[in-house]
Amino acid sequence: MSAPRYSLGLDFGTTSARALLVDVDTGLEVGAGVAPFAHGEAGIIADDRNPHLARQLPVDWQSATETAVAAALEATDESGARVDGRKVVGIGIDATASTPLPVDTRCRALADNPAFRERPDAMAWLWKDHTAHAEAEEITELASRELPEHLARCGGSYSSEWFFAKLLRCLRVAPDVLDAAADWVECGDWITAFLTGNEDPRSLPRGVCAAGHKGFYHDRHGLPPRSFLEQLDPRLGAWCEGRLFERAVPAGHAAGVLCEEWARRLGLRVGTPVSVAAIDAHVGAVGAGVRPGRLVKIVGTSACDMTVHPLDATPLGEIDGLSGVVQGSILPGHWGIEAGQSAVGDIFGWFVRQFAKPAGLDHDELTRRCAARRPGESGLLALDWNNGNRSILQDPLLTGCLVGQTLRTTPDEVYRALLESTAFGARIILERIEASGVAVDEVVLCGGIARKNPLLLDIYADVWKRPLKLSRSPQTCALGAAVFGAVACGAHDSVRAAQDAMSGMEETECRPDAHRARVYDELFGLYRKLHDAFGGVRQEADVSGVMKALLEVQGRARG
Amino acid sequence: MSAPRYSLGLDFGTTSARALLVDVDTGLEVGAGVAPFAHGEAGIIADDRNPHLARQLPVDWQSATETAVAAALEATDESGARVDGRKVVGIGIDATASTPLPVDTRCRALADNPAFRERPDAMAWLWKDHTAHAEAEEITELASRELPEHLARCGGSYSSEWFFAKLLRCLRVAPDVLDAAADWVECGDWITAFLTGNEDPRSLPRGVCAAGHKGFYHDRHGLPPRSFLEQLDPRLGAWCEGRLFERAVPAGHAAGVLCEEWARRLGLRVGTPVSVAAIDAHVGAVGAGVRPGRLVKIVGTSACDMTVHPLDATPLGEIDGLSGVVQGSILPGHWGIEAGQSAVGDIFGWFVRQFAKPAGLDHDELTRRCAARRPGESGLLALDWNNGNRSILQDPLLTGCLVGQTLRTTPDEVYRALLESTAFGARIILERIEASGVAVDEVVLCGGIARKNPLLLDIYADVWKRPLKLSRSPQTCALGAAVFGAVACGAHDSVRAAQDAMSGMEETECRPDAHRARVYDELFGLYRKLHDAFGGVRQEADVSGVMKALLEVQGRARG
Repeated sequence: MSAPRYSLGLDFGTTSARALLVDVDTGLEVGAGVAPFAHGEAGIIADDRNPHLARQLPVDWQSATETAVAAALEATDESGARVDGRKVVGIGIDATASTPLPVDTRCRALADNPAFRERPDAMAWLWKDHTAHAEAEEITELASRELPEHLARCGGSYSSEWFFAKLLRCLRVAPDVLDAAADWVECGDWITAFLTGNEDPRSLPRGVCAAGHKGFYHDRHGLPPRSFLEQLDPRLGAWCEGRLFERAVPAGHAAGVLCEEWARRLGLRVGTPVSVAAIDAHVGAVGAGVRPGRLVKIVGTSACDMTVHPLDATPLGEIDGLSGVVQGSILPGHWGIEAGQSAVGDIFGWFVRQFAKPAGLDHDELTRRCAARRPGESGLLALDWNNGNRSILQDPLLTGCLVGQTLRTTPDEVYRALLESTAFGARIILERIEASGVAVDEVVLCGGIARKNPLLLDIYADVWKRPLKLSRSPQTCALGAAVFGAVACGAHDSVRAAQDAMSGMEETECRPDAHRARVYDELFGLYRKLHDAFGGVRQEADVSGVMKALLEVQGRARG
Repeated sequence: MSAPRYSLGLDFGTTSARALLVDVDTGLEVGAGVAPFAHGEAGIIADDRNPHLARQLPVDWQSATETAVAAALEATDESGARVDGRKVVGIGIDATASTPLPVDTRCRALADNPAFRERPDAMAWLWKDHTAHAEAEEITELASRELPEHLARCGGSYSSEWFFAKLLRCLRVAPDVLDAAADWVECGDWITAFLTGNEDPRSLPRGVCAAGHKGFYHDRHGLPPRSFLEQLDPRLGAWCEGRLFERAVPAGHAAGVLCEEWARRLGLRVGTPVSVAAIDAHVGAVGAGVRPGRLVKIVGTSACDMTVHPLDATPLGEIDGLSGVVQGSILPGHWGIEAGQSAVGDIFGWFVRQFAKPAGLDHDELTRRCAARRPGESGLLALDWNNGNRSILQDPLLTGCLVGQTLRTTPDEVYRALLESTAFGARIILERIEASGVAVDEVVLCGGIARKNPLLLDIYADVWKRPLKLSRSPQTCALGAAVFGAVACGAHDSVRAAQDAMSGMEETECRPDAHRARVYDELFGLYRKLHDAFGGVRQEADVSGVMKALLEVQGRARG
């Protein structure tokens, strides 16, 4: 038996960093550590006068890396021996995106420069910062004429959360910050920069995942041409001269090797290969075993849907309404396809907090009550848009809707209708992906909600009419990062081989029930009517029969 | 100073009878008594196997009359003297309708005949009995071809609550009951029969109010012709030969005078004139001062809207979707116009009971919280159809709808949206009435909810853009009955004169606020879109902008 070899997955979330040590041959997760980001509220620098602002201090990422890795190395093996850092053979990284930060010529964060200390615009602009709303609209408007191919890659609409919207916003509100920046880099890429000791932004490898999904990077055309940036703002055109990168690289490629300083700080070997970074959700999909025909859905406060399609298979048309379709963003040699729902757990949590918890009804009690009900029995139908619609409508200015209330409607019936609404919203996405020629034979769910609520799993399987599996690891992002670490160092020849060795599913599989699926087919037809009518898919939509149809379904469900 | 003269108003509700002694010259309410009906649950005979069945025992009305009048006569005047029954100069009656009962040749209730004892089909069929649902549809279907003018008088659709639907149903399920009946009479008319000792159903005066609104009685054509009833069912055609009345009479006309037996039982004078009866809600409108230009709205669990229009004014077109437009049904010489909302207080009660009360939030606390909010601030909009829609859509198979929820929506915001939804539903009715050429310059509200909730009054005034008044008397139905008693005995020359002397308004008047009214105009436009789309007014309705418009209104409301 050979000595164990570990890959270190580093996962940079919104409020903390996680380190996971995984045996590259067995997938055994031998050690884990979490460290919250120190500054701001739960790691986020906010502004009382501007609710859209959300920034982060890069130095927090560095401190948290040290703390989390130290905690992971605290773990002991079966013999009681501590995990030996020298057995770590590769490092992988995932991070939120788009979370860009301005850096100086030596790749140091501008936020660490005393001249810019306490300037939020010089910090990292966290993914959920929405200050660049107007700039995003400008970009969408111009790109729809000038860069339709770039726009098609990210679903037809540029978001205020993304790279160029934030750059343009910074130019408008803090031009001195932009002037002082030698470049802007994504959080994940900046992590590889300091781990590998890279001091040249121009040579720093950039992950294609964040670049492609959020940075307007196109597989054939690269970044937008200078003329486009000039049209947005002449100053942006001037600024980008001699700045910005040319090519982006998929995760699994080595971005470099661990530098002396960080090897010392982390207790690892100098020269350990460090993978190119990718977005947390996409890396999570890899940790959950994503492959052609298998969609991974991470369900939390919101939900992220990811799948892949071989580059050399049937040519993939543009998929309107998805967040992104990017070459190599999830698996090398595949299109990475991403979509999402703006709120899932957040909707259940809102309802419980506002309408049920004060009366002593928590998630468990509501679930217990509505689990005894049959599909359609309540006569209710909801739209899952309490936080807007990310896919397919891509419209943040949509809101929730509940139809079918009578004088006998109960809280648990509403709760179940909300669970179902997220299933219907997800089915709209599944059907759009399939309509583009991408197979979705099964779905793997990740995230705490999926583990805690078996009723939700049943509803999802019945509405989607597909078998559902659960990812084995509860920390698929960090696991996916470790998978890429194992590939970057050559411990595995391919991501697929590393996945096979290191990731897996729970044994239990949830299969659809034919009768319930038929009832849900009917309800989904009605959901689609409301979806298309309120979402503006059809300007003239006939919803006049929806209430009667719900009463009919209810009548049959009650027997 | 002449000696006081009293009119006795007798009000037969769903669960009890009320007696009110009113000074015909001053309107002073000198004595009142209430007596619940003795049999069944709260006076209603139900059937566990059939939730649509609701019957009543006529003998309960008689006992309750005695008890309630005795209680009213217990009252003492300023000098401590008991009210003298001999000073009662007239008697008026209102009752629920359509609540018909089969009678024998001497006008005795068949339910009192030992041969039919305990046969629910021989009892009075209470207004809320819905067993005749299928028969109502048959009647509507046939009448739309054969009796369009009759149908137009009751809003284009015959209800399962109404006279002929119940007769036809009885024929189908209990033909022996129909065969044994010399006639069927409405509850109110039966009250006048026993009070006046009338033992001949053929000569018994029938109130035009119940006959016109619920009995297919037409001002020019009378009851439906025998041919029509024959087409419904040949046995019904045969049965009506020599039965049923020919002409109906407005309240205020004397139906006869108090007979010896009932004068003794009630302690009143033999020969006291007794008015023709009318429906409780319509008589309530009279007690609340209804007149041309003034609409009376009784708001309780549901709501009833009533107004009048001079017969000799601009010819009144048919008003589609109203419950009824009947000559003399409310005031003599006027069209009586009636509409309604299937649920008002019931919706607020449902929400509080299910979603707020268990958390300690009652009506008062929710009202206190949402009173601090501005119109439009919540971004919510609801349809008030939790119990279907009575007017204008006349569709019981509609349900509730709430649009605009976000992750921050609170219970009091939903509560306010529900209050507003009933205001918008009422405005649809107001506008339909006005569009027919009937003026509605002001609205008088009756009912406990209107008295208890000043916020609701503000919302109603702002949404309707009209001044609102409150009826002075809390028991407008019994007061209206006393008004008709005073007219029947000649104490007043006209109903208007009796109203002026005996009824009045609270001093406080609620006037619309111009700014809030403008915001509500916008929200009402959106309500109408949802109303028309879900209610099937338009099969192709564009609701795609509703959520965005709500967010815009919200943005402005929040300043």
